[in-house]
Amino acid sequence: MPNRLLDPTDNPDLTAERKNCQFDTDALAARFYGGAEKIRRRREIFKAVESIPELRDAVQDTSFMDRMQKLENGTRNAINVAKYAEEIISSPLAQEEAAYLNSLVVGRDGFPFIIHYVMVIPMLMNNADEEQMDWWFSKAFNREFISTYAQTELGHGTNLKKLETTAVYDEKTEEFVLNTPTITATKWWPGNLGKSTNMVMVMALLYTKGKCHGAHAFMMQIRDFETHKLLPGIEVGDIGPKYGMNANDNGFMRLNNVRIPRRNMLMKNARVEKDGTYVAPKHSKLAYTGMMFVRAVMIRDQALQLASAATISTRYSCVRRQGEMIEGDGEVKVLDYKTQQYRVLPHIARSICFLFAGDYSMRLYERLVDDLSKGDTSLMADLHALGSGLKAVVSFQTSQGIEQCRLACGGHGYSEAGGFLRLYGIATGGCTYEGENMVMLLQLARYIMKLIPRIRANDLSYKPSPLTAYYFQGQYKPKFSEYSPENPREINWRCIQDGFEYASRQLAFYAHVKYEKLVNGGMKPELAWNEVAVDLVKASKSHTRTFLARNFIDRVREERDPGIKNVLGDILHLYLLYEVLDCRADLLETGYMTHSQLHSIREDLSQTLTKIRANAVNIVDSFDISDRELVSVLGRKDGHVYENLYKWAQNSSLNQHEVLPFHHETLGKMMKDAREKSKL
Amino acid sequence: MPNRLLDPTDNPDLTAERKNCQFDTDALAARFYGGAEKIRRRREIFKAVESIPELRDAVQDTSFMDRMQKLENGTRNAINVAKYAEEIISSPLAQEEAAYLNSLVVGRDGFPFIIHYVMVIPMLMNNADEEQMDWWFSKAFNREFISTYAQTELGHGTNLKKLETTAVYDEKTEEFVLNTPTITATKWWPGNLGKSTNMVMVMALLYTKGKCHGAHAFMMQIRDFETHKLLPGIEVGDIGPKYGMNANDNGFMRLNNVRIPRRNMLMKNARVEKDGTYVAPKHSKLAYTGMMFVRAVMIRDQALQLASAATISTRYSCVRRQGEMIEGDGEVKVLDYKTQQYRVLPHIARSICFLFAGDYSMRLYERLVDDLSKGDTSLMADLHALGSGLKAVVSFQTSQGIEQCRLACGGHGYSEAGGFLRLYGIATGGCTYEGENMVMLLQLARYIMKLIPRIRANDLSYKPSPLTAYYFQGQYKPKFSEYSPENPREINWRCIQDGFEYASRQLAFYAHVKYEKLVNGGMKPELAWNEVAVDLVKASKSHTRTFLARNFIDRVREERDPGIKNVLGDILHLYLLYEVLDCRADLLETGYMTHSQLHSIREDLSQTLTKIRANAVNIVDSFDISDRELVSVLGRKDGHVYENLYKWAQNSSLNQHEVLPFHHETLGKMMKDAREKSKL
Repeated sequence: MPNRLLDPTDNPDLTAERKNCQFDTDALAARFYGGAEKIRRRREIFKAVESIPELRDAVQDTSFMDRMQKLENGTRNAINVAKYAEEIISSPLAQEEAAYLNSLVVGRDGFPFIIHYVMVIPMLMNNADEEQMDWWFSKAFNREFISTYAQTELGHGTNLKKLETTAVYDEKTEEFVLNTPTITATKWWPGNLGKSTNMVMVMALLYTKGKCHGAHAFMMQIRDFETHKLLPGIEVGDIGPKYGMNANDNGFMRLNNVRIPRRNMLMKNARVEKDGTYVAPKHSKLAYTGMMFVRAVMIRDQALQLASAATISTRYSCVRRQGEMIEGDGEVKVLDYKTQQYRVLPHIARSICFLFAGDYSMRLYERLVDDLSKGDTSLMADLHALGSGLKAVVSFQTSQGIEQCRLACGGHGYSEAGGFLRLYGIATGGCTYEGENMVMLLQLARYIMKLIPRIRANDLSYKPSPLTAYYFQGQYKPKFSEYSPENPREINWRCIQDGFEYASRQLAFYAHVKYEKLVNGGMKPELAWNEVAVDLVKASKSHTRTFLARNFIDRVREERDPGIKNVLGDILHLYLLYEVLDCRADLLETGYMTHSQLHSIREDLSQTLTKIRANAVNIVDSFDISDRELVSVLGRKDGHVYENLYKWAQNSSLNQHEVLPFHHETLGKMMKDAREKSKL
Repeated sequence: MPNRLLDPTDNPDLTAERKNCQFDTDALAARFYGGAEKIRRRREIFKAVESIPELRDAVQDTSFMDRMQKLENGTRNAINVAKYAEEIISSPLAQEEAAYLNSLVVGRDGFPFIIHYVMVIPMLMNNADEEQMDWWFSKAFNREFISTYAQTELGHGTNLKKLETTAVYDEKTEEFVLNTPTITATKWWPGNLGKSTNMVMVMALLYTKGKCHGAHAFMMQIRDFETHKLLPGIEVGDIGPKYGMNANDNGFMRLNNVRIPRRNMLMKNARVEKDGTYVAPKHSKLAYTGMMFVRAVMIRDQALQLASAATISTRYSCVRRQGEMIEGDGEVKVLDYKTQQYRVLPHIARSICFLFAGDYSMRLYERLVDDLSKGDTSLMADLHALGSGLKAVVSFQTSQGIEQCRLACGGHGYSEAGGFLRLYGIATGGCTYEGENMVMLLQLARYIMKLIPRIRANDLSYKPSPLTAYYFQGQYKPKFSEYSPENPREINWRCIQDGFEYASRQLAFYAHVKYEKLVNGGMKPELAWNEVAVDLVKASKSHTRTFLARNFIDRVREERDPGIKNVLGDILHLYLLYEVLDCRADLLETGYMTHSQLHSIREDLSQTLTKIRANAVNIVDSFDISDRELVSVLGRKDGHVYENLYKWAQNSSLNQHEVLPFHHETLGKMMKDAREKSKL
């Protein structure tokens, strides 16, 4: 079976791995990216990039650039992508193709219209009325202006009600007057706001006739379209360097009596009439579908971030040799160590699990948009709950996993040459942006807790969603795990899934019982909620695990190709065993699993690691992440790591001087003085 | 009871916390730093720094500097420290005072003689013979040269035997000829090697008379003392940017037939005679006490890194308000959320635990040095084992903890303004340098596994060290946890400690049984060792936990002052409960603890968090880490966070231009073209 990357000029240690391939790497890649046709298109896009000098020569390794250079580089690359996108991409709506093209040329440090595309345009589609769409949409789409979305304030994050920015309607002029009245009201963090964008979709508390109607979205011009200078009453700047995404000029904005026309408020849902009459929206959450879209996209992005880290770490672990296992036999590849397999390989499994979860969420989102267009909001709560849990769990496990993959690369992982810092920078940002993880998990918990009384009441008229049905089936499920080393593998998948569901039910009930006890004892419900918050978070994580595992199992069950089913089955098996060990305390606590079952699972895990180790390079090759995207000396497809580390280091700014300009007046003088003193 | 930082001009939200202080912050600080006299000296050193303009005005916030500026800044600051150190510090050997002075002025990004002091000088003391000490020591101590320690190679890390750099003795000239014969032999990573140092202590495989004697240390000049240019045959440079310590020019070095005199080999332990006769050392590990010293110092450093992160996060969590718990009551301090307490406060407890562990290790190291001078090497194995485990566990928990503290700061934690990136950069480096963590844990495991046959044999003649005695006492200990919510707190400490010891024994035996089974089944011992490596690592971590907990308990038991005993007792209690929940799976698996005990522990933990939350700001104030050292807008002692974030952002290089120089030819042109096209 072919590994499509096999090349005799590569490092022989990687070639040996690839020669052992047990499946077609392109066929496996097709599972990750939605079919063979998608892979064919990826190849075409890659070729197109290679054939256009402006795209081919785009610099992605920003390790040696300062902020200004990073911003300029990102800007030029993004403009080049925009210039050729139409001829490369099959349709303007082919979001995955556009994302791939971007990742080949622009990379992961951000670029000046990322928020414009990822947030503003989707939010326009969901929040602008028809006339507004006519006016704004094509201008936005063609980049006649570029814009950002400004919600977060210096002193305020996820709590929309407490925003301090105000938009007060002035009936006389039919305008809104916008202000950030305090230092803490300063808009802070919006991407590309600092220097790049000239329009902002700003969230502000709407006031009409002296009454506050909560946060609404307004389109506001902030810079002159010709000179790009700031308009009167507007102060804007960059907020400084961050963990990652430093080619993105996240910015701040202060507003002092800035006036915008009435129709700059987006009015698909809520409206303000000329006379100041406020018309409330039908479904108050309707405005937030943009956020749901971003969260669905994020899961896939994060899966690919983790897949990138796993690719780097796996390849490097087959290039790096360290220590003789048997004296005299020569140093072994570090991936032959069980500890290394245990540290790296589960992140391959999680990447794949997340890719499949991303698919599911995107399909669910598309169904929701379709439903909403028919006025059906029933999916909203489900998608919101699923999205909140996935957002938190996937972003956290991704950033942790990237760091584990990096630590597995030893010293060289610590150098920017490894490429992990850019990956970690963006991935760990995902734990906070688009909803802080702890807040997300508590939102999911609220949804779960609402189910508990229904479960208790055994209300058969209630139809739970497929995602939560298992909460209602506890009485039909085994009270003790049926996992056994004697079972066929597929049976054990069900047993483990039963275990996840069992733990999830247990944790949800545990939190609910504690909560009720406190409330019944006289505590205010809000305070009782806080008292049990740690338990609620655990219940939410556990529920998310059940979804991730079930979806992964479903995908493998549906697989028709025996070779692919086999390798995916191995990976799924690893995933399930790793996760069940991760939550074994929850399964042990109530006696659901036994010491001897866990012993078998550890044995099974160890054997599964050995199995996957044999194919590890081939599996990560199937992620189809090119060197252009990895930007990692350690993870190079050709495995020529050491000579390229040496080459990379030559770029260090310090190496432009044999003796640094300040040497003689600093260290040189210090040592000279000391030597002279000692001669006295 | 006074909080010594109380100041009415501070943010009232912090002042309110400090007014509630239940103990004397200086008295608690005395426990962390070794007594009231040490605190008095810290105050004096701090005042001295404030009174000397060159030290007072040293810039520590390097967020807006490029590599060259960071290096120059670090160099100048370090030289200023060196200039005044003699008048500020009580004695040249007062290592803690020197470290404190450095942390006040130079910070955490490294400086050009850090390795010279921390590694080369201690290694000289342990490896140079008397004549060599006379020649090298005072020159080194007075900084007539500055040097680094070069062991790691591009292709080789911890495995000394496989170094490729060679030092071949030439009897004719009585010189060694040094070479790095391959690309992978290139010395890589030594701190300050790239541009700053002019001498290197280099580890190379020694050859005499055609025979290899393993790795030995050689002193080698690499740059001309006057011009600072590289000497012939030597290629040296900086290896480029890293996660952290970017004011440290970690470097590479290639050697091509470089000749050094015979007496440049350090000969306290092994020797090469003029005629090339090799005299082996008495104890082959004697050369590595330098590493043990560094590991002992690292524990304290890491404790302070975690304490810094906990300080920032705790203070900011009392400044940041987010969400109304009760509607209409106003937004609450985020530290009032249980999830936030659970995320932040355990890291305060771990910091303190690590500080005490650092004390213990340093005392043990001092005893070892004393013993060695009398020819007694019996402590060596113990200290090496303890140091290996602590190095791995403390560095990992520190870097994880820093990230948890940062994530708890939400969006603003992601900005470099928070100061976490510098902390994380250095802390996570600690997981790899001075011995990769996984290797460290396996070294400890080897030591533990050697005990098992002795335990089984019930060999009463064998005297285990106090650190491992508990392995031998299993038969006298309860078979089930005696923890109960009814017990007095101190009794439960013992019960929990019993639990840690129980788990540690279980895991060690579990790994050993598995290992033996494999070996008895015919597997080579080395391969069997690899098969059970994941279990071995678990056993090592568990053993390290028993030490950390026991040492913390001992320290609290010894405390005489009732107020301090009370607050330290609360923190210890939190530590033990948090850790027992962390390893509850190991305690549940064999039925040692029950569901109901764990339920009680969770309740107990929740109450303990509430208790500590009330004093949290006062406890972190007792870490006595000044704003000079924190370099964090979020963690400012005065709590004036928001206005200073705004001020900090003004320094962004991008804000030096209202319109960026490349705007009109990039984004400006793109939008203009689009607008013109749409007019057609």
